Amino acid sequence: MKNNVVLKISGKWLSPENSKVVTGYVEILKKIKDKGVRLAVIVGGGSTARNYIDVARAFNVSESWLDLLGIESSRLNALLLVSLLQGYVHPKIPQNIKEFIDIWYTTDLIVICGGFQPGQSTTSVAALIAEAIGSKLIINAARVDGVYDKDPTKYSDAKKFNKITLSKLEKILSTSSSFKAGGYEVIDPLTINILKRAKIRMRIVYGGDPLNVLRVLEGKEIGTLIIPE
Amino acid sequence: MKNNVVLKISGKWLSPENSKVVTGYVEILKKIKDKGVRLAVIVGGGSTARNYIDVARAFNVSESWLDLLGIESSRLNALLLVSLLQGYVHPKIPQNIKEFIDIWYTTDLIVICGGFQPGQSTTSVAALIAEAIGSKLIINAARVDGVYDKDPTKYSDAKKFNKITLSKLEKILSTSSSFKAGGYEVIDPLTINILKRAKIRMRIVYGGDPLNVLRVLEGKEIGTLIIPE
Amino acid sequence: MKNNVVLKISGKWLSPENSKVVTGYVEILKKIKDKGVRLAVIVGGGSTARNYIDVARAFNVSESWLDLLGIESSRLNALLLVSLLQGYVHPKIPQNIKEFIDIWYTTDLIVICGGFQPGQSTTSVAALIAEAIGSKLIINAARVDGVYDKDPTKYSDAKKFNKITLSKLEKILSTSSSFKAGGYEVIDPLTINILKRAKIRMRIVYGGDPLNVLRVLEGKEIGTLIIPE
Amino acid sequence: MKNNVVLKISGKWLSPENSKVVTGYVEILKKIKDKGVRLAVIVGGGSTARNYIDVARAFNVSESWLDLLGIESSRLNALLLVSLLQGYVHPKIPQNIKEFIDIWYTTDLIVICGGFQPGQSTTSVAALIAEAIGSKLIINAARVDGVYDKDPTKYSDAKKFNKITLSKLEKILSTSSSFKAGGYEVIDPLTINILKRAKIRMRIVYGGDPLNVLRVLEGKEIGTLIIPE
Amino acid sequence: MKNNVVLKISGKWLSPENSKVVTGYVEILKKIKDKGVRLAVIVGGGSTARNYIDVARAFNVSESWLDLLGIESSRLNALLLVSLLQGYVHPKIPQNIKEFIDIWYTTDLIVICGGFQPGQSTTSVAALIAEAIGSKLIINAARVDGVYDKDPTKYSDAKKFNKITLSKLEKILSTSSSFKAGGYEVIDPLTINILKRAKIRMRIVYGGDPLNVLRVLEGKEIGTLIIPE
Amino acid sequence: MKNNVVLKISGKWLSPENSKVVTGYVEILKKIKDKGVRLAVIVGGGSTARNYIDVARAFNVSESWLDLLGIESSRLNALLLVSLLQGYVHPKIPQNIKEFIDIWYTTDLIVICGGFQPGQSTTSVAALIAEAIGSKLIINAARVDGVYDKDPTKYSDAKKFNKITLSKLEKILSTSSSFKAGGYEVIDPLTINILKRAKIRMRIVYGGDPLNVLRVLEGKEIGTLIIPE
Repeated sequence: MKNNVVLKISGKWLSPENSKVVTGYVEILKKIKDKGVRLAVIVGGGSTARNYIDVARAFNVSESWLDLLGIESSRLNALLLVSLLQGYVHPKIPQNIKEFIDIWYTTDLIVICGGFQPGQSTTSVAALIAEAIGSKLIINAARVDGVYDKDPTKYSDAKKFNKITLSKLEKILSTSSSFKAGGYEVIDPLTINILKRAKIRMRIVYGGDPLNVLRVLEGKEIGTLIIPE
Repeated sequence: MKNNVVLKISGKWLSPENSKVVTGYVEILKKIKDKGVRLAVIVGGGSTARNYIDVARAFNVSESWLDLLGIESSRLNALLLVSLLQGYVHPKIPQNIKEFIDIWYTTDLIVICGGFQPGQSTTSVAALIAEAIGSKLIINAARVDGVYDKDPTKYSDAKKFNKITLSKLEKILSTSSSFKAGGYEVIDPLTINILKRAKIRMRIVYGGDPLNVLRVLEGKEIGTLIIPE
Repeated sequence: MKNNVVLKISGKWLSPENSKVVTGYVEILKKIKDKGVRLAVIVGGGSTARNYIDVARAFNVSESWLDLLGIESSRLNALLLVSLLQGYVHPKIPQNIKEFIDIWYTTDLIVICGGFQPGQSTTSVAALIAEAIGSKLIINAARVDGVYDKDPTKYSDAKKFNKITLSKLEKILSTSSSFKAGGYEVIDPLTINILKRAKIRMRIVYGGDPLNVLRVLEGKEIGTLIIPE
Repeated sequence: MKNNVVLKISGKWLSPENSKVVTGYVEILKKIKDKGVRLAVIVGGGSTARNYIDVARAFNVSESWLDLLGIESSRLNALLLVSLLQGYVHPKIPQNIKEFIDIWYTTDLIVICGGFQPGQSTTSVAALIAEAIGSKLIINAARVDGVYDKDPTKYSDAKKFNKITLSKLEKILSTSSSFKAGGYEVIDPLTINILKRAKIRMRIVYGGDPLNVLRVLEGKEIGTLIIPE
Repeated sequence: MKNNVVLKISGKWLSPENSKVVTGYVEILKKIKDKGVRLAVIVGGGSTARNYIDVARAFNVSESWLDLLGIESSRLNALLLVSLLQGYVHPKIPQNIKEFIDIWYTTDLIVICGGFQPGQSTTSVAALIAEAIGSKLIINAARVDGVYDKDPTKYSDAKKFNKITLSKLEKILSTSSSFKAGGYEVIDPLTINILKRAKIRMRIVYGGDPLNVLRVLEGKEIGTLIIPE
Repeated sequence: MKNNVVLKISGKWLSPENSKVVTGYVEILKKIKDKGVRLAVIVGGGSTARNYIDVARAFNVSESWLDLLGIESSRLNALLLVSLLQGYVHPKIPQNIKEFIDIWYTTDLIVICGGFQPGQSTTSVAALIAEAIGSKLIINAARVDGVYDKDPTKYSDAKKFNKITLSKLEKILSTSSSFKAGGYEVIDPLTINILKRAKIRMRIVYGGDPLNVLRVLEGKEIGTLIIPE
């Protein structure tokens, strides 16, 4: 049985303004596919999502609708990746977990998707997918290079964890109030619950360097490993 | 503009074994519709869901798949209600928030649905819908008659709250570990987050007496009111 | 070319209350697939269908709607089987003959479905599928162990047929009036017509013992063989 | 509540070669709609269906596939009628009973459809629809002008019935063997069963004169009335 | 019968970076709807489309795929407008002419869409829609304020036409080679053909000022009127 | 990588009245598939389309609607071919370029379709498909045997081109006014634009002899080759 890997890529790295990083991911994904690893890729909405959400938020549009704008933006990022990976990817972008499953079990191609539903971050989509296909590892190519004990952009003495349990992570997060559309942090409560119940590990790495994904697959212990305990 | 009311009915009360309660809901919903109140109804999976999930769990099927069984069971309960309310309800059962919105804004009929996605309880579906259509109240016709300070089935001195803030409720819930398919309690973390961000109130009443829904609409302060603070 | 086998399983044997029989079918279907036999499986609605239909019938809901409840119940049984056979089955449950064909010709996996349309029993769905894919045998894992000359539950001297022609069967059935939703007997007029026009044989065996399906594939002449003459 | 009328029109009268009759139906249907009568219209495949089926039958294609060609042909006839009745009809042609119901309860426009599924004549589609929407009369604008005691094209002394019960009709039909795709006669076993169980009357009139539909609505007792007894 | 107006808005004016213009369109569209005018709105892809297409074009992705990226971008702009016009617009964004027609004839709400198919500009989508619903005027809120005899950005003596026939316009365009994805000029060959065959007028006005749409509806002769001759 | 060939077949040759030619195509397509060549087949509407369009045109139905009738007719021709090529073709008929792509990259079977959208000839559908899948040759099995310098049915001295550039072809066509539904000539402006931008060649051969398709694949220089210059 082939190895199943779930890869979440922050939308930041797939938006048009980072076209060099996009190029990097196209090459990396082809290489991983050629090695025979099966890949599920979930991409975020990035700056496109943020731009559209900002306009709508000024009109007091509800968070559900803001999420819908974010989801469509993430699907546009997914479509960009699909268009650049023809022959390597399934051309259809699944819009919910049922469609994902239908495609996953009937192809060997890479399956790429964006968000599914309002109220769910693309990270929790990655967790749901990993659970549904029985994958035990999610690689999260994030905007940041790991989990810190405090905000590293504000505190110069912030310390990055090599490993952290979900229980400990939950305590750190319990002070932040970040459950707004487009602003889901590295990990959100729904994701934590799924990782727990399905005993899935998630390794957070800096997504600005696509080679980090390869490094994880080769066993390098970079970024932060989140352990479902 | 008509009043929008979101009604969550526990699947327990719509499963075939409670056919008398089903009859009660059919009558109540017709009456409410005839008064010109717009109704979104979300139904749970009840015993049908539990029965199917139990079989699958014995095979170590993942929670995502268990959720899918629960979702289809809740849709069967929804279809039963639809078949009994012809002419009063939109015949189509929306399968995600986008479909719900498409139907809601193009009809005056009652819209009935079950679950949407794995990882979401039907209560959080009710919260997402309330947020999307701008409703500020969810009536939760639950298995229980309100929120208690401890488990009333175990402690005879358990005390029911007339009102409780989300913050206080979160503290009470933080001890319980109930995030399993089919076992979502009265309220789950995702629901709490949506109620908070959209400032929606939820009144929990005993769903075994359909008249309780009418009582709430008439201003009776029964059950427990959860306040988004 | 692989052998195409169409298997109808009575919903009775796939409802949650018969979880041991469900387990048996999961094992048998895996074995048959591993032997390289292509399988189309059609499941009935069983007790779930009956429970929901009973509630709705008390409201004088039309037979078309009762059939819809039965069809959704049969699809829930199909979903249960799909969740237990991941990797062996196509994850999508086709909802009409066109969808069935689309899936059948593009996969080697087992395809599982429930009912298609009001006015059609799941047995006639099995017949339509056999005709569409050119299969000449339907194995009907029924509630009973074959066709009798009179009702074996009422007459102790009822005699089971080893073989019976459709013409003879029609004569026996012409006295019974069983064309009600959820109450289709072993075989109905629509099924008979399809078996006739497409010259398909149907072997009725006792479905409570999943091994009977294997026995038929191994050439055992159990139950009753219905011959299209 | 508006009167619901189900009208079956033989495909013969809606195929391009009978464009004058088509014109007649366009005018009649507008008139009936303007009177406030709600109309469900089911059209057959006619000569288009027969032409395509004939080619495929020469290749020994199965009856299921022949039915699919017939169904698509009937939908083409339906689309022609829809294009000529813009503003009077719902533009979507429902493809199964669920889609029909979804449209029927959310519009006041005429709903037009062709066939639904292999193994069902368009007449039985009309019967299923009548049952689902609670209509008690089907007007069948047929190729013939009623039901006869023998084939009127062969026997000059054939006698037309003004009224006939289903039981008597079944006896007459029991000798004919006409259950082939494209060759369903005026009424088939599935239709008979639905008319019986839902107690629906069907009046067969000569469809070559569209005014006959109006005549029936005005109470004229033309053609043959089939009574569900 | 209500007046049908087809409004094409250049994607430039609906992209997030022009949020003030977006605000203007939201107000104008509500006003027009409140006057009882029926509106079909088609929006282009704007800078979002251009950004995504630029990335993909660097990979030598085919024009068909570039068009798909442009179409999804235009739908994102459409979704933004839908989210800001709740209660005034149909929430569903039709993805082809058939879906557009299905929605148009079953609602009084504004219908908003983006592109339909590769090889078609959103302007030609506007023309197809005008033809299908029998509208004789398209208001094109463009990036420019009309049609000139030469490129006004290059020649200071370029002269704007108040009126121009399609035949004359075709001659002017026959020198430019602008049939690339994302770069369709004010009008393209397919649009010209549809305007001709359906005898539809198109008035090009500067879209940066949303009030121009109102001005046209009030009879002001601004911009350039293209006449189907 | 397998060779991709796009084959456009005029609807004339697939309509029921030319059943012998249909038979020829069935045999030829099987042979080509067995050689390992990947085939995309696009079929026109032929006489079926013309018959339905003629009826509707007499009612002054708009060209968009006439195109819809033509598209459905072409899909009926496609379905006929699909029914005759079971096991060689993907059973689903894609209805737009996105569906075509989804199928093309997930099967090795022949993919057959009819028209996609009003305003597009089936020839331009063939061009869009060739562009999307990177094919550089379209074989157009037309009603005629090539491109002439004047109408060969009117002028006995009309001369057939062996080769012709698009630029030259455009000049010849600029005099004809043939942009009406069902009357698209051998090539239309949209097709020309796509052939140009994607640098695709199209060879026009007489479609009445299916062997011509094989001859082209074997390198025979029959008919007229249109060169994208």
